[in-house]
Amino acid sequence: MNTQPSKQLISPSQSFPFPEEGKAEIFPVGDIRTEAGGVVWDARIAVQRWGELRRDTDGSTNIILVEHALTGDSDAVNWWNGLIGPGLSLDTDRYCVMCTNALGGCSGTTGPSSPHPDGRPWGSRFPALSIRDLVTAERQLLDVLGISKVTAVVGGSMGGARTLEWILMHPERVGAAAILAVSARASAWQIGIQSAQISAITNDPEWLNGEYHSTSGYPRQGLAAARRIAHLTYRGEQEIDERFGTDAQDGENPLGVFRDPGQRFAVQSYLDHQARKLVERFDAGSYVVLTEALNRHDIGRGRGGLNKALSEIQVPTLVAGVDTDILYPYHQQEHISRNVGNLLGMAKIVSPVGHDAFLTETRQVARVFRRFLLLATGANPA
Amino acid sequence: MNTQPSKQLISPSQSFPFPEEGKAEIFPVGDIRTEAGGVVWDARIAVQRWGELRRDTDGSTNIILVEHALTGDSDAVNWWNGLIGPGLSLDTDRYCVMCTNALGGCSGTTGPSSPHPDGRPWGSRFPALSIRDLVTAERQLLDVLGISKVTAVVGGSMGGARTLEWILMHPERVGAAAILAVSARASAWQIGIQSAQISAITNDPEWLNGEYHSTSGYPRQGLAAARRIAHLTYRGEQEIDERFGTDAQDGENPLGVFRDPGQRFAVQSYLDHQARKLVERFDAGSYVVLTEALNRHDIGRGRGGLNKALSEIQVPTLVAGVDTDILYPYHQQEHISRNVGNLLGMAKIVSPVGHDAFLTETRQVARVFRRFLLLATGANPA
Repeated sequence: MNTQPSKQLISPSQSFPFPEEGKAEIFPVGDIRTEAGGVVWDARIAVQRWGELRRDTDGSTNIILVEHALTGDSDAVNWWNGLIGPGLSLDTDRYCVMCTNALGGCSGTTGPSSPHPDGRPWGSRFPALSIRDLVTAERQLLDVLGISKVTAVVGGSMGGARTLEWILMHPERVGAAAILAVSARASAWQIGIQSAQISAITNDPEWLNGEYHSTSGYPRQGLAAARRIAHLTYRGEQEIDERFGTDAQDGENPLGVFRDPGQRFAVQSYLDHQARKLVERFDAGSYVVLTEALNRHDIGRGRGGLNKALSEIQVPTLVAGVDTDILYPYHQQEHISRNVGNLLGMAKIVSPVGHDAFLTETRQVARVFRRFLLLATGANPA
Repeated sequence: MNTQPSKQLISPSQSFPFPEEGKAEIFPVGDIRTEAGGVVWDARIAVQRWGELRRDTDGSTNIILVEHALTGDSDAVNWWNGLIGPGLSLDTDRYCVMCTNALGGCSGTTGPSSPHPDGRPWGSRFPALSIRDLVTAERQLLDVLGISKVTAVVGGSMGGARTLEWILMHPERVGAAAILAVSARASAWQIGIQSAQISAITNDPEWLNGEYHSTSGYPRQGLAAARRIAHLTYRGEQEIDERFGTDAQDGENPLGVFRDPGQRFAVQSYLDHQARKLVERFDAGSYVVLTEALNRHDIGRGRGGLNKALSEIQVPTLVAGVDTDILYPYHQQEHISRNVGNLLGMAKIVSPVGHDAFLTETRQVARVFRRFLLLATGANPA
C-alpha cells in the first residue's frame, strides 16, 4: 500500500478514549430526546472501529461510519464480511472504519432490554424511535468522542435510511454518503409487511405488552414468525426457488394425509433455521422498536416533502440498489438518485438474491465502495 | 345477439336436477378419496350457474366451468363482476357458466366447518387436500349432474391451478382452458409466505388444533393476521403506495411518543379492513386447508416432472398473467406457455394492481376471455 497519511495520527489514549481495534466498547452519551417527544435517559452506545484514527487540525477525520441494518450490530467486519480491512474496499490502512450499535438495539446499546435508570428493564417504557433518533444517538456519541466530521457515512437498508438522515440532519459533519438498498421514506407496502411482523410478536402470549424481560418467558414464537416473513422480503423469489423449489425437507413428508407442522417442505425448514438463529441472538423488543423506526422512515417529514428534502442534500451522495429487491425495489433508489441535490453516482447490483444482495454480493458492493471513495475523496483506489 | 344454439336445450328438470339460474344448490357427490390417502365422507358441493345448459348428443355441453381462487365461492358473478352475463365476455346467452365452491371451502361445500357424518364438525379430522382433490370433487359433481364434457374451464390463482389439473386429470372432459395468474407448481417463496399465514392462524390460542368449531372461540386474530399478509402479496407495491404512502389514518397519529396499535398509518387501517371483511365471511379452517392445497400444488408430481406434464397437455390452453404480480410473477406464466403442449395464446394483463388484477382489470380480462373463446371454439365474438 502506498498510503501517505495526510492527517495527524491520534493514538486512542492521547486525547480521548477510543476503542481498541475490533473491540466493542460502550460509551455513555447522555439523555436522548426523541423526535416524538420521548426521552431515553442515560443512553449508552456500543462502538467498534478498525484502522487508525487520523484527525486534521480542523477536526475532520478519516472515519468511515458504517450503519448497520435492522438486526445488525457494531461488528461490521462480521456482517459486511470481505469489505472492511487492510487493502479491502473500506481500506483500514487508509480509513478508520467505525460502526455503532443503533439506539434501541440489543448488542451493547441501550434498548428495551437494557436497564432503565431505575434498575428494571426499559420494556414498554422505551419510547418509539424514528430513524432520526438513531442518528441523534450516534451524533451524541461522536460529540463524546470529539469527532467533528467523518469522511463518509455508508449503509444499506435501515443503515441506508440512517445515512440519508445523517446528511440531512448534520451535513456539516459528513464528507460523503453511500446509500444502498433503501428508499427516501417507508412505502405503504413496507409499513404493511413490517406491521405484520410487529403484530406477530405482540400477539405472542409471552410478549406481555413488552414487559417479558422481567419474566421467564420470551415471545420466541412471535419473533420467529416475524423473521420468517421478513426473510421472504430479503430474498429474491427466484433465488429461493432455485434452492428449494417444492423439495421436502430430508426425512420429512409434507404431503401426508393430514397437515403436520413437523413434516415440512425444505423452504420451511430453511426459514425455521433463519428464525431460530435470530431468536437466539436478538431481542424481540429491539425488533419491534427498530421495525417501528422503519415504519416512521420519511425524510420529507417536516422538511416540505420528500423531493424538497432530497434536493437540499449537498453532501456528495452515491446511491445503489439491487435489481431483484422486492422490499426496497430499485425504482426507489432511482427516485433518490433523480432528486438528490448532489449525486456522486448511481450503481445497480445485479443479483438473484434480492434485498440481501447488499450484504452478500461482496465483489459488486466492493466495486461500489471503491468507486464511491474515488469519487468522494479523489484518492487513488486501493 | 345472433346466437344460433347448436346444442339441444335441456330444461333443468328434464333429465337431471340443475340449479335455478344464479341460485346456489348443494349436491351430495359421495365420498372423496384424497391424493394422500384420506377420505372426505359423504361430501357435498355447492354450485351456481348462469345461462341455459345445452347438451349435444355426445354428452358435451356449452358449460364454461369457472374456478374460484382461495377465498372465493360459487357466486362467480359477484367476484368476477362484469365478465359473466348476457353479452359479456363469458356470454350467458351462449354459454352456461357454472361455478362450484371448492372442496374444503365454507360456502356450501364440505369443509372443516361442515358436519362430519358423526354430526360434529370435521375440524382437525378433515384431511389435507391437494389441488387434485379439489378437481376430483368437482369431477364427481359433474358425474352426478350427468355432464360428460364442458366447453371450457377457466380460472385464476388457485382457480388457475385447478384448471391446470383439470386438463391433466380429465382432458377428455374439457374443450379448452384459460389459466390466469398462476404457476405450474408452488414456488418456494409461495410456500414460505403461505406457511406464514397458516402459522398465524394455528398460533392463535383460539385455534385449538383446528377444533374451535365446537367452542365459542374463533381464531379471529390469527385469520386477520394471515389475510393482512396475503393481501400484501395480492397487491402491487406501487399501487398500494400511491393510495396510502405514509399517510396517517384519519384521526390517528402513528408517530406518537410510544408505539400504539390503535394509532395507525392509513395502510394499516386498510389492511385491517380487508382482514375484518374476510374474518366475517370465511372459516379459518377452510383457509388453512386451501392454503395448504396451494402449498401442495405441483402438476409435475407423479407425472415425470413439470415440463413433461406440461408438454402432455393436449387441451387447447390460453395462459395469462399480470406484469406486476409478486405472488405469481409473470415469468411463471411464461414458463407454462413455453412448455404447454397445446398453446392457444398468451396474454399479459398490464396493471399496477398486482396479482388481484386478474379480478379487478375487468376490461383486459374480458378481452382475454373473448379472444380465448374465439380461438377455442371458432365462434364469432359476442
